[in-house]
Amino acid sequence: MSISPVFTCLGGGHGLYQTLLAARHARAGHINAVVTVADDGGSSGRLRRELGMIPPGDLRMALSALTHDSEEGRLWRSTLQHRFKGNGAMAGHAVGNLILAGLSEEAGGMQQALDVLAKWTRSNGRVIPVCNEPLEIEADVAGLDDDPRVLRSVRGQVAVATTPGTVRRVRILPGDPPVNSAAIAAIMNADVVTVGPGSWFSSVIPHLLVPDVVTALNETTAQVVVILNLSPEAGETQGFTTERHMHLLSQHAPGLHVDHFLADNYLTATPGERRHLQRTAERVGGAIAYMDVRTIREDGSATNTHDPEKLAAALMTLSGSG
Amino acid sequence: MSISPVFTCLGGGHGLYQTLLAARHARAGHINAVVTVADDGGSSGRLRRELGMIPPGDLRMALSALTHDSEEGRLWRSTLQHRFKGNGAMAGHAVGNLILAGLSEEAGGMQQALDVLAKWTRSNGRVIPVCNEPLEIEADVAGLDDDPRVLRSVRGQVAVATTPGTVRRVRILPGDPPVNSAAIAAIMNADVVTVGPGSWFSSVIPHLLVPDVVTALNETTAQVVVILNLSPEAGETQGFTTERHMHLLSQHAPGLHVDHFLADNYLTATPGERRHLQRTAERVGGAIAYMDVRTIREDGSATNTHDPEKLAAALMTLSGSG
Repeated sequence: MSISPVFTCLGGGHGLYQTLLAARHARAGHINAVVTVADDGGSSGRLRRELGMIPPGDLRMALSALTHDSEEGRLWRSTLQHRFKGNGAMAGHAVGNLILAGLSEEAGGMQQALDVLAKWTRSNGRVIPVCNEPLEIEADVAGLDDDPRVLRSVRGQVAVATTPGTVRRVRILPGDPPVNSAAIAAIMNADVVTVGPGSWFSSVIPHLLVPDVVTALNETTAQVVVILNLSPEAGETQGFTTERHMHLLSQHAPGLHVDHFLADNYLTATPGERRHLQRTAERVGGAIAYMDVRTIREDGSATNTHDPEKLAAALMTLSGSG
Repeated sequence: MSISPVFTCLGGGHGLYQTLLAARHARAGHINAVVTVADDGGSSGRLRRELGMIPPGDLRMALSALTHDSEEGRLWRSTLQHRFKGNGAMAGHAVGNLILAGLSEEAGGMQQALDVLAKWTRSNGRVIPVCNEPLEIEADVAGLDDDPRVLRSVRGQVAVATTPGTVRRVRILPGDPPVNSAAIAAIMNADVVTVGPGSWFSSVIPHLLVPDVVTALNETTAQVVVILNLSPEAGETQGFTTERHMHLLSQHAPGLHVDHFLADNYLTATPGERRHLQRTAERVGGAIAYMDVRTIREDGSATNTHDPEKLAAALMTLSGSG
């Protein structure tokens, strides 16, 4: 383990954003964000449909988390994240999504555009789409029919995330997409690899449905840490237990090896439940750790967001560099 | 006159773009682009209506002309100028317009946004909207009625530029807008001030309808050079002679002083016509100069575009620094 470890963080959305902030707090020597490309909602979905591009929203958020720590970097961040208001054709579009749309055509591809923007924003790391083409999510969902045994197929990230039924399993389409080799290199060359937190079916599991990603996770010498969510995601995993979240990973990626599951010590679990979760972790070769990682408000109440500084400390401890 | 003269270029659109390239060729010590804000067409018009902002298109083009002379600068330029294709909600929008839309809200105003972008693009100069609020153009137009003496009022830049009638006079609304003080300072502190070329009623004359701009043009110690168009603009000034173009300036800005009118020596004018044009120039205190400023194709045919290198040489000669 080097003194300035290389962090490679897999995920998407707000969960990945917080993890990238944590990696910065951990004084990572370099940070790679490996990002899902299956979003079809909001500004990303509109641009994906209109321009046939990789949905840019999760990429933009990761870029924003990594902009230089200076006044200029903060202005870049707020500009990338700026959303148009009102109710016109532009309403809801984030400026950074539009820059990525144009720059990816001018620079010769999305990875090139991300690398150029990383330079312009004096980024602390690199943003890497897991695949160089947009993916779709398709889920087998129970509870949509009178007969609870019937599974219906629901396609699209938004549809899956908002289904009133219970998601049993997700697939990506195409099923064996061409992985971005930079994503594999980022996993192999890391000291710490994080998976999650985030919307389990939208932002976390899709990574594990790319066979080369699972192979890399199992072969890397990095410590692989799954960061568990602080609360089940409304819609997607409403009512799912922590154990079920853990189990879903190996269900979707048989043979997956994980070194650590990181849970919040605020998690209400009896000693019996904790033994049970530890056994679940051991089934993929790992252990579960309970640490203080949650953001607490000034009035002492708990949030469902990871605190970047606390998360940084936890990751440093788990990876042996704390 | 300093060895690296300060150029301040008034205009908009493609005419200003070429002039700014010329100023770069002239090795200007600093370049200011003072830009019209009355456009209501295309991407600019859509953003102006949807977001209530200063129309960004002319500002973006000026910024693009000034990006750093390097691979990075060229990529910035092509990204700012990149237009979305297709037939969706984004079609026709230029990425630079969208960046200006977002950045002006994040940075505290359009001038601030332009100054930030100038820094990011390592610009060779500064882009200055002539006013800090959008203006409207209104024209008195003849020939729209059966009775040719009847003047009808036509409002909006696109409507004026495409009227089938003959524009007699234009106004800006509001009539005495609050000028951007940076525009006045840029005129006062210049060694060379250029006016035009460009769409006479859309990009050139609106500057002269701002009283403080005319005062500054008359008071500056800079050489004030009006760069005449190489051809009448289709629509706006279809069929207008060079003399009429010159006359329109003092018609709209009584008391305006001009040092030089720069015409192309390719201009077909008899000695008699040239004496006439010289007298027209003298009426505003200036002289007309004929120089080789036109872009000639490889096959020897003439274009209607100024050649930046030739224009640079002409401006240096006229300003006494050639």
